[in-house]
Amino acid sequence: MDGMSDIFEKKCSLLITNLVVNGKAVDIFIDETGIIAGISENERVRHKGEAEFIIDGDHAIALPGLVNTHTHAAMTLLRGYADDMVLQDWLSQKIWPLEAHLTGDDVYLGTRLACLEMIRSGTTAFNDMYFFMDDAARAVDESGIRGVLSYGFIDLFNEEKRETECKTTGNFVAQVKSLNNPRIKASVGPHAIYTVSKEGLMWCAEFAKEQKIGTHIHLSETEKEVQDCVARYGMSPTFFLDECGILTPGTVTAHCCWLDEAECTLLKNRGVSVSHNPASNMKLATHRAMPYPWLSGAGVNVCLGTDGCASNNNLDLFEEAKIAALLQKFYWNDPTILPAHEALAMATVNGADALGFGTGRLIVGAAADIILVNTRRVCNTPLHNPTSNLVYSCNGGAVETTICDGRVLMLDGEIPGEEAIRESASFSALELVRRAQNS
Amino acid sequence: MDGMSDIFEKKCSLLITNLVVNGKAVDIFIDETGIIAGISENERVRHKGEAEFIIDGDHAIALPGLVNTHTHAAMTLLRGYADDMVLQDWLSQKIWPLEAHLTGDDVYLGTRLACLEMIRSGTTAFNDMYFFMDDAARAVDESGIRGVLSYGFIDLFNEEKRETECKTTGNFVAQVKSLNNPRIKASVGPHAIYTVSKEGLMWCAEFAKEQKIGTHIHLSETEKEVQDCVARYGMSPTFFLDECGILTPGTVTAHCCWLDEAECTLLKNRGVSVSHNPASNMKLATHRAMPYPWLSGAGVNVCLGTDGCASNNNLDLFEEAKIAALLQKFYWNDPTILPAHEALAMATVNGADALGFGTGRLIVGAAADIILVNTRRVCNTPLHNPTSNLVYSCNGGAVETTICDGRVLMLDGEIPGEEAIRESASFSALELVRRAQNS
Repeated sequence: MDGMSDIFEKKCSLLITNLVVNGKAVDIFIDETGIIAGISENERVRHKGEAEFIIDGDHAIALPGLVNTHTHAAMTLLRGYADDMVLQDWLSQKIWPLEAHLTGDDVYLGTRLACLEMIRSGTTAFNDMYFFMDDAARAVDESGIRGVLSYGFIDLFNEEKRETECKTTGNFVAQVKSLNNPRIKASVGPHAIYTVSKEGLMWCAEFAKEQKIGTHIHLSETEKEVQDCVARYGMSPTFFLDECGILTPGTVTAHCCWLDEAECTLLKNRGVSVSHNPASNMKLATHRAMPYPWLSGAGVNVCLGTDGCASNNNLDLFEEAKIAALLQKFYWNDPTILPAHEALAMATVNGADALGFGTGRLIVGAAADIILVNTRRVCNTPLHNPTSNLVYSCNGGAVETTICDGRVLMLDGEIPGEEAIRESASFSALELVRRAQNS
Repeated sequence: MDGMSDIFEKKCSLLITNLVVNGKAVDIFIDETGIIAGISENERVRHKGEAEFIIDGDHAIALPGLVNTHTHAAMTLLRGYADDMVLQDWLSQKIWPLEAHLTGDDVYLGTRLACLEMIRSGTTAFNDMYFFMDDAARAVDESGIRGVLSYGFIDLFNEEKRETECKTTGNFVAQVKSLNNPRIKASVGPHAIYTVSKEGLMWCAEFAKEQKIGTHIHLSETEKEVQDCVARYGMSPTFFLDECGILTPGTVTAHCCWLDEAECTLLKNRGVSVSHNPASNMKLATHRAMPYPWLSGAGVNVCLGTDGCASNNNLDLFEEAKIAALLQKFYWNDPTILPAHEALAMATVNGADALGFGTGRLIVGAAADIILVNTRRVCNTPLHNPTSNLVYSCNGGAVETTICDGRVLMLDGEIPGEEAIRESASFSALELVRRAQNS
């Protein structure tokens, strides 16, 4: 690490030697614009003089940075605050009362903590929905990773509230565009069909189209949502969203536990990406697993998300990939469903395609979001099948180096400023609880 | 770490300061016999001069060493060798052909690797069943952790084979007793009702009673096992085992996915401990989760196991505790089932009570199996509820120091000899596959 501390300062040309990609020994050369400019066994010869820094990969497995397609990043502040409760009690007695006291600074610090956790566990891009999103954007900007950020639009079927939400959404999208940061995109975030009116949903669809941005929504998380939708609108949630114009290739729908087969086909026809959130679904007892066999059979782009830390309680996508594979096999009663390579694709290329940053593939010309997984760990011993070890044996702790957009964010386990981020987030979380208890 | 390398050499008196136990700040003093001799906020004053070594706990959470109540340790060598297959194909095409080439040295090296993984992730005692168990015992002896070891007794309903299995079991038990190592106990390991005849089971029960040792058996893992048992013996597997005399307070039954309520009551009445193995059950698609509500309702001692690395694929009991809590909530459709403190108890005190080494509680007079979990990690930030973080947010990677029987086996992440163990196990695993492929 001597003489390497400058490596964290800015994007610079990088040569990483002694890597393994898809079972082959390669070096990777990243140019100063953050693009993968070379990937072969010869890069060390071709680019040695050119690279500002050289990292010895020490036979690490190189993967595209993982992509978390559904989370509420600032909820790291609520990690462990309330668990093991019935959903409605958990929300009304614990989560909402605390969230009522959240400030923009809390969201900034919580999102900083979330980005730190993601960097440490190999995630370089995420799809977020929460409040005080200007502050979340500031945190993402400083962290160095990528975020698609949406303000959680909730009108509770109230016209006045709807107008406020439209305004807040519009302001936030304009704010993100003004940042002109290629690592940060805005999307429109209608929360769910049970919290947003039909008019609200239609406005969101129209606004996303007009702004040429994506949409992020919860869909079919619980059986009650489906039953209520059929009672209210006479159709299943996915068909209702389609009627509102929400379903497009820029849309990510989270959870999707209770879809039927016709809904899976519709999602494919509209080009929607589906985010599977198995740990959260299990913890909150949704009692049905997202129908991966139907979705993958229909050809839907299925990706992976952790949901927020209040219902998981971490942001480790390696762990999530394992739980996804286990849950699908268990629930759909077939150990061949969602094999390791598909679970890994969900966490990498599929998620990347959903968010559209041009990451997710280790090929020349792709954006350099790269993570290095240490093979000198028990979880990679023996190494009969790296993909199996990555999904079933390792967790995010096996990631040693994280690069996003060509910039080194973690090197050999070191992340500059980590302690300050942890401590300020800790303090902010305790203060938040104190305020809520005193109110 | 300067001057601390001797700490690994042998059991010695130890003072560990700045710990948190059950939310209270304490120091722990361990005497030179490996017993917890003091635990309070004053130990540093009372024992400073006396302690051979002083470890600064740096506000770590101290827990009893975790207890893995069902595994096949040497199967670490098969980690990632075959996944995502139907059980029968997986066994007949992949696992059994490889196991046919296993040698005693392989089992020694695989068990060494397993013990290394357990030390690193905070497990200090395990309940094992496999072949070449003399070699497994040698590995456990050298590793410094505790093992209850059983030879997997499989007679396949053949009288001649049964006699061989009785002899092998008898020899192994005698061998373990001759070691006179308080960290290693033998138990009797009839594999399951579908691989062992009634006569074999009855012999095992009688022999365990005569030798005053425990029993370790797979029970009710698949629906087929239950159906076949009812067809063959006219009763459910648990009642059949009871008829054979297998069920005693020294018995650990693994899996137990397909128990009915009457079986749960019988297990309680016989004082049996039940080992829950959720990751393996999900990966192999057993399609039903162990009925924790019935078992805990009946008052059965329910503990936790990882199963072997071929069907998990790691030995991380923190991960297993999370998956247990998630699976129970999901399958039994209630988010309040198996709350974090019960999941942690399964991995600690319940497991310890099942194996009977006198570990599992941080109290004066208990055996000093203690692990220190770093609170300066993202997974413990914020720290609203340490128990929640331990179960839902952290994994075994948060363990920094592991002490078994008063001897320090890992200190601040360092385990002496780790690289050699990993490398020899790796080599042995590759050679094993080569032998199997050339045969």
